[in-house]
Amino acid sequence: MLLEHLPALEGKRIVLASASPRRRELLQQMGMKFEVVVSSFEETLPKERYSAADYARHTASHKALDVARQLAAAAAAGAAPPPALVIGADTVVEYGEHILEKPADAADAARVLRMLSGKRHHVHTGVALPRLHTFSVTTSVEFEELSAEAIQAYIASGEPFGKAGSYGIQGLAGSFVRGIEGCYFNVVGFPLHRFGTELATLIASGALRL
Amino acid sequence: MLLEHLPALEGKRIVLASASPRRRELLQQMGMKFEVVVSSFEETLPKERYSAADYARHTASHKALDVARQLAAAAAAGAAPPPALVIGADTVVEYGEHILEKPADAADAARVLRMLSGKRHHVHTGVALPRLHTFSVTTSVEFEELSAEAIQAYIASGEPFGKAGSYGIQGLAGSFVRGIEGCYFNVVGFPLHRFGTELATLIASGALRL
Repeated sequence: MLLEHLPALEGKRIVLASASPRRRELLQQMGMKFEVVVSSFEETLPKERYSAADYARHTASHKALDVARQLAAAAAAGAAPPPALVIGADTVVEYGEHILEKPADAADAARVLRMLSGKRHHVHTGVALPRLHTFSVTTSVEFEELSAEAIQAYIASGEPFGKAGSYGIQGLAGSFVRGIEGCYFNVVGFPLHRFGTELATLIASGALRL
Repeated sequence: MLLEHLPALEGKRIVLASASPRRRELLQQMGMKFEVVVSSFEETLPKERYSAADYARHTASHKALDVARQLAAAAAAGAAPPPALVIGADTVVEYGEHILEKPADAADAARVLRMLSGKRHHVHTGVALPRLHTFSVTTSVEFEELSAEAIQAYIASGEPFGKAGSYGIQGLAGSFVRGIEGCYFNVVGFPLHRFGTELATLIASGALRL
């Protein structure tokens, strides 16, 4: 588990290439110490060319590479030491043929929530560790039937905005999830268990030198 | 979902009969307003007489009834208005023939974590609304293999203490859970989705008058 590898990470420069406060909280909850550097990469890859899982993995890769390049340039200029590890991540919701990201506005959020109401969908989080490894993890999530009133009340709470699939399972939406199959934290935005096992493999193989 | 029924609960005296800070946070996360009154009921029902789910349900019932009686006596003495709703809950972990509650000490926590390592177990939360309804919800949880070092590091963190099954999925243990099947919040200590649907039924049937 991740806890075992924290001593190896101690004192190393680790950078999370993500603006998501939920992702930051998850890694903090695990006892990791890191900086946050946000990428300027726009989430605009052509969706028709990727499976939802690959879309998340490639978006994560672009974000992480963008930050890794910024930091390498700063290190080359002597501004800061190079990072030991950069972590990028991206979460999308897949339902039917749709890859759902953050809602554009209230009407978009309502449309997405009506689509997911009473159904099972998939949440994919892609994780990228530049020049080392990329992977994605999928969790299935089942919503209860949401009445029009429930959707309106939920949108009025403001919670859907800024969240893939227009909901936050760790917030008010927690009560409308019948159940999940897989990693809960992957739905929140970061697959803690899988990240721990991938990190252990990279350390054991010598690919990640700390 | 629970959010729809919050207006009906607004301004009513709701009492959570549980000392668990995690349960309190879950209900607060749902936007519920309530007081906490802790029961003096000891978790000492004879385990051999119950299934694990029924054990949790009956323990929840005893806790909730104990608090309901205290509050009824206070109300009869004119000390405070009677509560509109009392909520009791109890969470246990079941593995094989064992019903696992909070660990007695570090050695007990290590024994339990070795037992759960690499295996799938069940978490049952019983909920009791005195004189109205009781129910229980079950979630299955799969742990990765935990090395002796990982178990020692986890115990040294202090997190296993005070927690059913000697772990907290919402804390460091989040990274050693391969996946779950069912309601995540039920594992944390309160089945938010099912509570919302049961509450809706009680309100609609007139059994719960608010």
